Amino acid sequence: MWRLFQYPLCPFSRKVRFACAVKAVPVELVLEKPWERRDEFAALNPAGQTPVMQKGEITLIDSAAICDYFEETVDRVPLLGSGPEDRAEARRLIAWFDQKFYAEVTAPLLSERMYKRLYSKQAPDAGAVRTASRNAEGHLDYLDFLLDRRRWLSGPAFGLADIAAAAQISVADYLGGIDWDGHEPARIWYSALKSRPTFRPLLAERMEGLPPPSHYDKLDF
Amino acid sequence: MWRLFQYPLCPFSRKVRFACAVKAVPVELVLEKPWERRDEFAALNPAGQTPVMQKGEITLIDSAAICDYFEETVDRVPLLGSGPEDRAEARRLIAWFDQKFYAEVTAPLLSERMYKRLYSKQAPDAGAVRTASRNAEGHLDYLDFLLDRRRWLSGPAFGLADIAAAAQISVADYLGGIDWDGHEPARIWYSALKSRPTFRPLLAERMEGLPPPSHYDKLDF
Repeated sequence: MWRLFQYPLCPFSRKVRFACAVKAVPVELVLEKPWERRDEFAALNPAGQTPVMQKGEITLIDSAAICDYFEETVDRVPLLGSGPEDRAEARRLIAWFDQKFYAEVTAPLLSERMYKRLYSKQAPDAGAVRTASRNAEGHLDYLDFLLDRRRWLSGPAFGLADIAAAAQISVADYLGGIDWDGHEPARIWYSALKSRPTFRPLLAERMEGLPPPSHYDKLDF
Repeated sequence: MWRLFQYPLCPFSRKVRFACAVKAVPVELVLEKPWERRDEFAALNPAGQTPVMQKGEITLIDSAAICDYFEETVDRVPLLGSGPEDRAEARRLIAWFDQKFYAEVTAPLLSERMYKRLYSKQAPDAGAVRTASRNAEGHLDYLDFLLDRRRWLSGPAFGLADIAAAAQISVADYLGGIDWDGHEPARIWYSALKSRPTFRPLLAERMEGLPPPSHYDKLDF
């Protein structure tokens, strides 16, 4: 079985877990806190980041490389669309959430509300949290815009763009950075994801010492 | 013909230009300075970043999505390796240079030595430049390590990992952030790339008001 090195609030690990669940690839979870810089983990991934997937001699690193690997090797439920233009649009949105949403929303929230609270024992910087929440608002506006025009984020079919977005948004939501008020299209889309048996297990997990807001895993939020 | 919205020191535009040259895809260059936030460009790419490729109704956004598009649609010179594991290794290294090298080396050098000099008319922060150069040193060590074991970065064949690396390194080198001393494997690899007719035109370009160091486009450096 594939072993996935991850921790519960790593958005890129969530992306890989959600994608593997949809593709019915069984995964054994290994808890890895990359900030502890374990020597064995650095030897596995010189970039020092989760997620890493390993089975026998094969080591897969980087969430996009991992998802592409399973897209190529597991025919069940294609997640990137059917033609090159569809795939380019899906990849554009995956990059949007992996890089832009992460840098503007998830990374500052993880730093202020997870890392400082659990590890460096500092108070969060209120200004940084406010900026991240304001950025999240802009991203939800863009989700609404897309979902007014499309059934799913990158087109008519559910796929990796939805998975990448749900991974980032669910971590930001866990950390109290998402205000769903006034974002009906995004809320309906996220509610549909929350009810999927492939996504629900992720929402049931907790980061020790850091409880999510009460609406976090509710279908009605 | 495809139109590529780019500027000379955008490392992701360089990656797309180099890949298109190798695949013999003709490209018309359109100068776009994303920091000027042109309305028409924001309408084309809501993320507001170069590169963007456009032809007729098709708009391609994000350098990874663009390179994957041409990998799928142009058979000539496959650039991602032949099996799923090879492709995963290539994609791991592409992400390494697109994200890690960019964040640790190229982005701070662009900010300190291009943006501040040409646009905000401030002096560069010497500490930030020193940190970026020290980070570059670590990345060159990793290149040496890989090239002691492989002909090209991701394996026996030249491909997108080499292109992504050359794109970032050439911008850092233009901005004086690369010290090649003591990095023979990386130097030999980069010298081989510099002599390629598909890469040389990039090295002949200049950013107005910002000359590169004298070794920048020399084959013997």
